[in-house]
Amino acid sequence: MTEVAVFGLGAMGFGVATSCLNAGFKTFGMDPNTKLTARFKNQGGELGDPKNVASTLGAVVIVVLNDLQTEEVLFGKNGIAQALKEGAVVISCATVSPKFARRMEEQCTELGILFLDAPISGGAAKAAKGALSVMASGSDSAFEAAEPVLNAMSETVFRLADKAGAGSAMKAVNQMLAGVHIAAMAEAVTFAISQGISPSRFLEVIPKCAGTSWMLENRAPHIAQGDYTPLSQVKIWPKDLGIVLDIAEQSGFEAPITQTALQQFKAAVAMGLENEDDAAVAKIYARQAGLNLPEITE
Amino acid sequence: MTEVAVFGLGAMGFGVATSCLNAGFKTFGMDPNTKLTARFKNQGGELGDPKNVASTLGAVVIVVLNDLQTEEVLFGKNGIAQALKEGAVVISCATVSPKFARRMEEQCTELGILFLDAPISGGAAKAAKGALSVMASGSDSAFEAAEPVLNAMSETVFRLADKAGAGSAMKAVNQMLAGVHIAAMAEAVTFAISQGISPSRFLEVIPKCAGTSWMLENRAPHIAQGDYTPLSQVKIWPKDLGIVLDIAEQSGFEAPITQTALQQFKAAVAMGLENEDDAAVAKIYARQAGLNLPEITE
Repeated sequence: MTEVAVFGLGAMGFGVATSCLNAGFKTFGMDPNTKLTARFKNQGGELGDPKNVASTLGAVVIVVLNDLQTEEVLFGKNGIAQALKEGAVVISCATVSPKFARRMEEQCTELGILFLDAPISGGAAKAAKGALSVMASGSDSAFEAAEPVLNAMSETVFRLADKAGAGSAMKAVNQMLAGVHIAAMAEAVTFAISQGISPSRFLEVIPKCAGTSWMLENRAPHIAQGDYTPLSQVKIWPKDLGIVLDIAEQSGFEAPITQTALQQFKAAVAMGLENEDDAAVAKIYARQAGLNLPEITE
Repeated sequence: MTEVAVFGLGAMGFGVATSCLNAGFKTFGMDPNTKLTARFKNQGGELGDPKNVASTLGAVVIVVLNDLQTEEVLFGKNGIAQALKEGAVVISCATVSPKFARRMEEQCTELGILFLDAPISGGAAKAAKGALSVMASGSDSAFEAAEPVLNAMSETVFRLADKAGAGSAMKAVNQMLAGVHIAAMAEAVTFAISQGISPSRFLEVIPKCAGTSWMLENRAPHIAQGDYTPLSQVKIWPKDLGIVLDIAEQSGFEAPITQTALQQFKAAVAMGLENEDDAAVAKIYARQAGLNLPEITE
């Protein structure tokens, strides 16, 4: 039986970790936040010092915020990479640049460890159900070693290429669209309000027309209900669209619509909305135009 | 049996007119382009001078480009409004401002004619099948008089309010999203190419992820196939997003993402792409970043 460690017990990582538990793996949960580790222990999870448990692990799933935290887990002061056994697989799920993913793959390969570039999509609800989508690339051996854990955490695995980079590139493309569509939805819902169309009327019509998107159908109800309980937070988007635009810039690619959407999310953070649900970017538009958004009814 | 006249026999209007024929209405087709009127006659349609046939018409469907053309049909030098019989209904389908729609309703009401603010969505294919969506607002009498023709041309009628304006407002909201989503799709497909992801691989993955949209699934295949045969032309978007932004400006509403998408369509027109399929806006991005798009294979 494979032993697994999951680094990062936030909304996505917690779901990945409990999915591993549900699949019967002995699973260690690692997070600097002791509330999260205590919660994981209550679910039957294991806690421990990364370096002490490293030698028994078959797989390490890294579900942290960004490239810096990913590198810290593997090669930082308390990095685990050196202590992993040969043939163990690192499943790297944070949104990072393809270039960074390729460097991590190289450094792992030098140590005899397998590396899978494996960003995830689907949100906290699908993570909890073990039903994520994984945009994965890596060697055949990495896929083979990762398979039991991928089965536990995901519904769909896109196998994109035989080396790291392609997974992160596809994730960047998806995040570009997802971020732009959330901001566009906010622009359209508030424009509708300015023309006397309520968000609930908007939701009756637009999902049946050519203007709809996955994000619109998922997020516009939060505005109609006035409920900004964070399922995905505003602050994710300056980070993820920033990564997207960094990658684009390295390729000499200009992405003006993504740039504009990023400005709206940055304005939302500047307005103090960083921890609200990302649909709260609509408040930027409402403030500019002096419009009232629906308020939550208890 | 109601007699109907359809003004404008372009991609959408032709489908509306043949749908009226298929429903058994004696249908007149009006268009300055004699190729289009000849084609309609071949399908069993009637031709005639608008003013001569006006007195027998139960319904007039206006499927022209914009507000100026709509006003010309009704109140221009050869305008038909004065000659219509009392209780005839005008079904106004062009994308126009809510303000304009309200003025047309007023002017029609003064003449004892009914007016339905009834922009359409669904594209040429759905128009040909009589399966459009209609975003309609107007009086009960206008809906009642229009019903047989609406049944012939559409699958779904959203009944939004009891006076003109709400239909055009909802259409503007839909066009805002549709235009932004086409440009965002083009930005994302070309960004993907810049990262080594082909449009066909993009289409395997993104429609199953949170980044998808109706327009992406409809238009990205044109890029993957390199086929820019116009189903909806690039030049529609400077017009429609221009209308959207005019309406927004009148309400003091700023729409920066829509503005940015409009710039991309204007750049495509400036590049000579105005008559290509609107997915050709991707060529703006490809040119900027020096990327190759797929070419059509015969």
